[in-house]
Amino acid sequence: MEFSSKLLENAVNQISQLPGIGKRTALRLALHLLRQPKENTHKLSLALETMVNDLKLCKSCHNISDNDLCDICANPLRKTDVICVVEDIRDVMAIENTASHKGLYHVLGGKISPMDGVGPHDLNISSLVEKVKNGSVKELIFALSPTMEGDTTNFYIYKQIKEFEVETSTIARGISVGDELEYADEITLGRSILNRIPFENSLKL
Amino acid sequence: MEFSSKLLENAVNQISQLPGIGKRTALRLALHLLRQPKENTHKLSLALETMVNDLKLCKSCHNISDNDLCDICANPLRKTDVICVVEDIRDVMAIENTASHKGLYHVLGGKISPMDGVGPHDLNISSLVEKVKNGSVKELIFALSPTMEGDTTNFYIYKQIKEFEVETSTIARGISVGDELEYADEITLGRSILNRIPFENSLKL
Repeated sequence: MEFSSKLLENAVNQISQLPGIGKRTALRLALHLLRQPKENTHKLSLALETMVNDLKLCKSCHNISDNDLCDICANPLRKTDVICVVEDIRDVMAIENTASHKGLYHVLGGKISPMDGVGPHDLNISSLVEKVKNGSVKELIFALSPTMEGDTTNFYIYKQIKEFEVETSTIARGISVGDELEYADEITLGRSILNRIPFENSLKL
Repeated sequence: MEFSSKLLENAVNQISQLPGIGKRTALRLALHLLRQPKENTHKLSLALETMVNDLKLCKSCHNISDNDLCDICANPLRKTDVICVVEDIRDVMAIENTASHKGLYHVLGGKISPMDGVGPHDLNISSLVEKVKNGSVKELIFALSPTMEGDTTNFYIYKQIKEFEVETSTIARGISVGDELEYADEITLGRSILNRIPFENSLKL
């Protein structure tokens, strides 16, 4: 791609560093910014800079936060002895939207994935084990994605904490609500039968 | 979407102002920036700010440029009497990549489109008519998209300049190189037959 301006070329190169954005999309975005009032671009770049400079991670759960403790950890109404273990903060947001978890979270910051060079020590696992060791946790809910990496991570943490007195559970795997049974994959369907629940329980949901 | 941080929320809101980027993609991009070294975000925001603040439009052809005259207009080797009329600077880049045009460009900055509220006076048409009036132009090549709006714009400009001595041409419409004939639409196929060229000419390309 030949640019008539070094400034434009530099902006396009920087934008196309973002994941999922190629040179053509970057050019489209840059030209869009040029057509807008200058304040818009100023607001955008200011928001990005303040975010990366001022954002903190919650000292307790590693969720993204404006303060030392995130709003969830600082909320006195949450159950402090039930901790939901998630991969990243998007999962916290997704679970919070369902309003089905009243406890706290622990954000690992990824999954164990040797293929991507991510080992247990790259994740926030030791601080989780520390919490369990202190005896303040009654239940740990593993809410990682049901993939090979997610299962590996669950199992790694489980091995570290099984000596302590803590209940562990994992989110249910089964047929998605609204799905047609005939299109479900075998493993999911098989698990949904093995992990069947009393019909009366399903009526309460 | 519930955010645990106002800073993150603000950044996501700003990013999702960009065309084709929704809240979820914006969040993914923001989290990506947070995982990167801070310098990367600084480079990105600096590139955007410098671009919108320092970028100029070429005084002659309205192409984007770092100087008063763009590299194409300032190049003494280009034919100054053949002007290719295009919609925006992406078209200049596309045509430059083909190396088939040795003259100059004139960037209109859009197409006449009453549906989008774009009239002739929102485009760089008067400066083009001025160039033609001065008698310095021998040929005008219309290279707008072959759409209703493109054709309207071509015709509007044509009416303004037909009293002056200037040749006008429009880019050929026909079957794309590599296309299967049976899948071409009727209008394109019909025009490609009406506008057929001597076979010997096609051998020279």
